[in-house]
Amino acid sequence: MTDSNWSAQGEAKRQSILNAIPEIWRLKGPIPTAVEQRDVTGPYIQQFLSNREIEITESDAVDITAETTSGRWSAVEVTKAFCHRAAIAHQLVSCLHEIFFDAAIEDAIKLDAYFAEHKAPTGPLHGLPVSLKDQFHVKGVETTMGYVGWIGTFQGQHDDPRRATKESELVRELRNLGAVLYCKTSVPTTLMAGETVNNIIGYTWNPKNRLLSCGGSSGGEGALIALRGSPAGFGTDIGGSVRIPAGFNSLYGLRPSSGRVPYQSAANSADGQSTILSVIGPLAPTARSLTLLFKAVLSQQPWLHDPLALEIPWRDTIVEETRKLINQATSGTSSLAFGIMPYNGVGRIHPPIARGMKLVQQTLERLGHKVIPWNPPSHERAHDIAARTFDMDGGADFRHHFSLSGETQAKQVIVQQNGPQLSASEIAALNITKREYQKEYMDYWNSTAALTGTGRPVDGLFCPLASHAAVIPAQYESVGYTAFVNVLDYSSISIPVTFADKTVDVHGKNLSLSADYINWNYDADTYDGAPVGIQLVGRRLQEEKMLTIAEYIGEEIARDI
Amino acid sequence: MTDSNWSAQGEAKRQSILNAIPEIWRLKGPIPTAVEQRDVTGPYIQQFLSNREIEITESDAVDITAETTSGRWSAVEVTKAFCHRAAIAHQLVSCLHEIFFDAAIEDAIKLDAYFAEHKAPTGPLHGLPVSLKDQFHVKGVETTMGYVGWIGTFQGQHDDPRRATKESELVRELRNLGAVLYCKTSVPTTLMAGETVNNIIGYTWNPKNRLLSCGGSSGGEGALIALRGSPAGFGTDIGGSVRIPAGFNSLYGLRPSSGRVPYQSAANSADGQSTILSVIGPLAPTARSLTLLFKAVLSQQPWLHDPLALEIPWRDTIVEETRKLINQATSGTSSLAFGIMPYNGVGRIHPPIARGMKLVQQTLERLGHKVIPWNPPSHERAHDIAARTFDMDGGADFRHHFSLSGETQAKQVIVQQNGPQLSASEIAALNITKREYQKEYMDYWNSTAALTGTGRPVDGLFCPLASHAAVIPAQYESVGYTAFVNVLDYSSISIPVTFADKTVDVHGKNLSLSADYINWNYDADTYDGAPVGIQLVGRRLQEEKMLTIAEYIGEEIARDI
Repeated sequence: MTDSNWSAQGEAKRQSILNAIPEIWRLKGPIPTAVEQRDVTGPYIQQFLSNREIEITESDAVDITAETTSGRWSAVEVTKAFCHRAAIAHQLVSCLHEIFFDAAIEDAIKLDAYFAEHKAPTGPLHGLPVSLKDQFHVKGVETTMGYVGWIGTFQGQHDDPRRATKESELVRELRNLGAVLYCKTSVPTTLMAGETVNNIIGYTWNPKNRLLSCGGSSGGEGALIALRGSPAGFGTDIGGSVRIPAGFNSLYGLRPSSGRVPYQSAANSADGQSTILSVIGPLAPTARSLTLLFKAVLSQQPWLHDPLALEIPWRDTIVEETRKLINQATSGTSSLAFGIMPYNGVGRIHPPIARGMKLVQQTLERLGHKVIPWNPPSHERAHDIAARTFDMDGGADFRHHFSLSGETQAKQVIVQQNGPQLSASEIAALNITKREYQKEYMDYWNSTAALTGTGRPVDGLFCPLASHAAVIPAQYESVGYTAFVNVLDYSSISIPVTFADKTVDVHGKNLSLSADYINWNYDADTYDGAPVGIQLVGRRLQEEKMLTIAEYIGEEIARDI
Repeated sequence: MTDSNWSAQGEAKRQSILNAIPEIWRLKGPIPTAVEQRDVTGPYIQQFLSNREIEITESDAVDITAETTSGRWSAVEVTKAFCHRAAIAHQLVSCLHEIFFDAAIEDAIKLDAYFAEHKAPTGPLHGLPVSLKDQFHVKGVETTMGYVGWIGTFQGQHDDPRRATKESELVRELRNLGAVLYCKTSVPTTLMAGETVNNIIGYTWNPKNRLLSCGGSSGGEGALIALRGSPAGFGTDIGGSVRIPAGFNSLYGLRPSSGRVPYQSAANSADGQSTILSVIGPLAPTARSLTLLFKAVLSQQPWLHDPLALEIPWRDTIVEETRKLINQATSGTSSLAFGIMPYNGVGRIHPPIARGMKLVQQTLERLGHKVIPWNPPSHERAHDIAARTFDMDGGADFRHHFSLSGETQAKQVIVQQNGPQLSASEIAALNITKREYQKEYMDYWNSTAALTGTGRPVDGLFCPLASHAAVIPAQYESVGYTAFVNVLDYSSISIPVTFADKTVDVHGKNLSLSADYINWNYDADTYDGAPVGIQLVGRRLQEEKMLTIAEYIGEEIARDI
């Protein structure tokens, strides 16, 4: 395929996405440049919406479902409001790969009919629009995952009957739960990037500061939800791909341990690589929205439908135990204890991140929680394990999918394209190295029981998500701050903390680290306004505990800002 | 190393094991040949023991711990009785790799002192001797896993400080629980064989019929427990290695799904291969003994100490639900439903196995349970996935360990020694093939809900463990009957059913299969008396349910024989 062919194909697909937006929802006239109007969230996007649409779309998933499952709001009205807002969001920051508003409204009509007949909702997500990263297969809808070579195919395969007929297991479960599916969001080709760029939709910008990236690889989710074009959506995370766009867009994002949310029948990069598994997790503006979605999915018993899913239902007992500990804190007793790691010993950090970590520490201390410095096994080793895993096939999978169209690869992709294939023996050795690292980390975590004063090891760890706030294009430093969690298969949640502020986050201030580590590519003016997220990390399979703590601490941090 | 070197080294080690048996426990005079005395269980071995020793060693783990945890039996008396019986067992069938009776008796003295002081046991396994397959590391004791090249090393590595100092996580937990460790049992070199043969102890014979194999790879466990030289022990299973020796020795054996029993710091073959994980499971003469051990280990929260262990504690609710269903059966209501598969469409079966399966079916029908024929996705595909997985590194791991001494390999080993290494892309493709097979099987299992009349899919599947009863040396047919469970990562339990009987199990009788399939290498006279076990297979992570059903059905089968 010639160069002009793939770019024309990409352009045609890009146009077809725009064409799927109803005429009346298209923006008239030019959109201001990023320099003219950095921030298109809040008042900027609100100008295109009715007050009622704003009321609906600025409610979170918990409030929305309270209305839709009680019949006070109709599924159709809610769906149309989000379709409208998503359409505008896409025109502002280029965050959608697929638009299927008509099918969504048809589904919503059926939900309303069901409610009218039964006086009851179909499920806990009745009438809730949910956005999906473009890895999930939905009937009647294409999946490109950003590859030009996937246009008109099923995962790059021509004449495959599964094209636009197959549904991913999670999609089936979301439908059972009453959710309405209406759009799929943009990703970087290969999924291996902390930004979102491909030869179909181009570049997805950060809605809070359009000079910057929305993050990746679930970048379209981050941007869309930041603009409230979706109340909640599902992304995937193999090195930070849920948490980074959540953090870059002032959202919450859950990276569960593998086996909790079903990956069955979703498209993926380097599928079958089993050293570090990509996992699915939700993103939303509130922590309680993550809980709603995660708990709802577990109620579908995914372990009966996905061979890699674990039979671990939602555990209310863990939530109750955690709340009890939190309530002890309110009464003045030291109850929870946390590790804190503002710097991982490897990746440089910018002033806004250093300040964000300091804010978190202040909040924890104000609440009377024990905070201990985190001195774990080297994070450089974790990063090396992740890098060797991601490069395991020497880029064969990516090469193949790029070659389908002949398209070029964005420079942001962090994996090699022409490396050697590891052999079975080398992969086995890597798996052992990983397991030994996990064991060391586990033992270190256990050892903190001697320091916390609670009789338990730390209840969680706070650390940065990245070296920087939402990043300047092509300046993403390293996924070391997120990928260690994937190596460990721990549970982790992004929590929004603050925004970069050029008046406060100036070179060399507020930091104990050397100037080299903070001034690198730090441009206080460009970063001004960029969301600063951090992450709360828990042990493996501790999603219930982490969600409960994230809801509590997130609110307390917001109170302090 | 020259040929004479490795055989001399093996012989020296063999002799050192025998030398570890106290003089007074050594058998005087020649042991009768297998032709003179096939069966050395029961009355034969009893002649060497006191009545009190017989009483103790023929109690099961549940009865023993009832006595030891209440202080009625001392740990020392129980330990000495099992040490004595194990010493005789080894002299009869060559089932031990390591003997450390002195350390065991010292530990037992400490347990008794603890009980005397606290009037309470140290844990639920207080004073229970537990045997271990020679993959577990125990302080002060060597691990050879049958390799001559591992003698005097740590897993083949010279001057490794972990030699005889490191303990496996399971060993640590067993000590916490109050168990007494006293011997390690024989394995086939590589662990990849359904018989037990190596260049140290030679061949481990079947105690019930010494013309036959004890099975493998946890063969020493099977033989030792069959002779009641141990009340219960732990083996490992990657293709049937717990279930085969359990079945071949008229025992129960549990192959749990991966992640329940901690494998951390145990030796293994081809460690790091992650497509099909070897798992640890208990063997014992009664199903309730398996429950005791399995539940005790889970009480240690292995997920806090082994990064691959899952946070799934023992679930009493599943036991209660299952018992409720069983009790419905007693009251005449059809309650449980089972698939039955006497023949997997690939592996030939002998008359004793066909009869064993018929007996199981009759018992199920007598109890009023629904029995449906099992027509799953092809088991040949499962067998192919297992074979490609086991051969993934082209035999590099085995070659390396054989090369340490230059020793030869037994012909029973089922893996290749000089094949190609799979590449990362090939392994990824294999992982996808496996996952798709698992998904198909899961969907088939779910589909049986339409046939059972219970509103649920089948509660379990009964099928053979092997083509034959305890096998004639070097005639093991294929591990297809067991390895499909490993491919699926399902839970499975061996249940003893009957014994081969030359007067009943004659050529071509009692079978709907063609003569080719049953007369192959079937020698009614040699097989006479061989134990016939079958397996009960449950979904993934359904150990609580399978143990509850195995206890019930096992007793009912025994009642019918």
